[in-house]
Amino acid sequence: MSNSAVVIIISAPSGTGKTSICRSIFRQFPDIRFSVSYTTRPPRSGEVDGRDYYFVTEDVFREKAQNGEFAEWAENYGHHYGTSRRVVEEIRSRGEDLILDVEPRGARALKELYPDGVFVFVLPPDLEELKKRLQKRGAEDDEIRERRFQKAKDEIREVVWYDYIIVNDRLESAVEKLRAVYLAEKCRRERQRPVIDGFMKEA
Amino acid sequence: MSNSAVVIIISAPSGTGKTSICRSIFRQFPDIRFSVSYTTRPPRSGEVDGRDYYFVTEDVFREKAQNGEFAEWAENYGHHYGTSRRVVEEIRSRGEDLILDVEPRGARALKELYPDGVFVFVLPPDLEELKKRLQKRGAEDDEIRERRFQKAKDEIREVVWYDYIIVNDRLESAVEKLRAVYLAEKCRRERQRPVIDGFMKEA
Repeated sequence: MSNSAVVIIISAPSGTGKTSICRSIFRQFPDIRFSVSYTTRPPRSGEVDGRDYYFVTEDVFREKAQNGEFAEWAENYGHHYGTSRRVVEEIRSRGEDLILDVEPRGARALKELYPDGVFVFVLPPDLEELKKRLQKRGAEDDEIRERRFQKAKDEIREVVWYDYIIVNDRLESAVEKLRAVYLAEKCRRERQRPVIDGFMKEA
Repeated sequence: MSNSAVVIIISAPSGTGKTSICRSIFRQFPDIRFSVSYTTRPPRSGEVDGRDYYFVTEDVFREKAQNGEFAEWAENYGHHYGTSRRVVEEIRSRGEDLILDVEPRGARALKELYPDGVFVFVLPPDLEELKKRLQKRGAEDDEIRERRFQKAKDEIREVVWYDYIIVNDRLESAVEKLRAVYLAEKCRRERQRPVIDGFMKEA
């Protein structure tokens, strides 16, 4: 992996707006790569296989998991989601910057695999707002909604080991913060080694 | 000091454009405080006592240094520059964000005093460009210019322990990077403790 490449792992409970934030960042920085995840969940309207996800069957997913092909995988509402180890390694070996969008429970496995990764957690403005956003999402009954809310609260407890916390109170402001994290991390001394080496050679 | 306040210590060899970068940041973020340094150098045209520097005599400076009033002080081209420990402490105790603009040799003392500080080093695009910029600065003779250049090269060796490196190839780009460092550091988990505590209490 190139000294100067950044791997950002972004994670949030459902309903926090993480996907919208990432989309805006990819528009601003077309050179940042995105690791497309595998999932067993059916495509939603507008989703494209190979762009949004690799849509696979339970059997295919299980086989990949057993073969150790996933850097992380997690179950979410009965569906499986996994990050391909090979895809991540290929991007890293080319020295390209990369954003991984993963479930909070999957992120912890990546922390062990990529200790130099930059871990960003997106929070809703408060729990009331999260509740409202989860309600808007679907017409499920109260019990399912309550279970989703409890799950989101559990996921928020993971925040304690992340590097950066972005509160998504307003999309533009959250996007600017993720942009700042990316630009700042590019400036970290550890990633500026080629520049420093250049000066040391000259000086 | 408030958990969430940021102290940025910015440092660069002369001729790198650090002061212009800081000015632009202060315009963008009027709430960031600036610690006005003491100096024995005479005011340049347009400089205001108490805004750009506190202009003092050698005797006054020496007394302050002996009384331990400076968080750091250094000599530069025959003049003394010092950061008032009291001014810094007052700003920090109010939980306000602060930028300190210091000589590379002074920054190292601050690293010991404020280990939670964010240390930013501004580099010229390359040594040739630095030489050109130093030449433009004054009509001194070749020997003085060469001495300044050697001094700048010595200062650049300090870069190895800084947190962030900003190459000032274009002012707007360097300003955006310092802005990113500031915004990203505000998002660091250690500085988001009040937000996290709020969620933990609710959840």
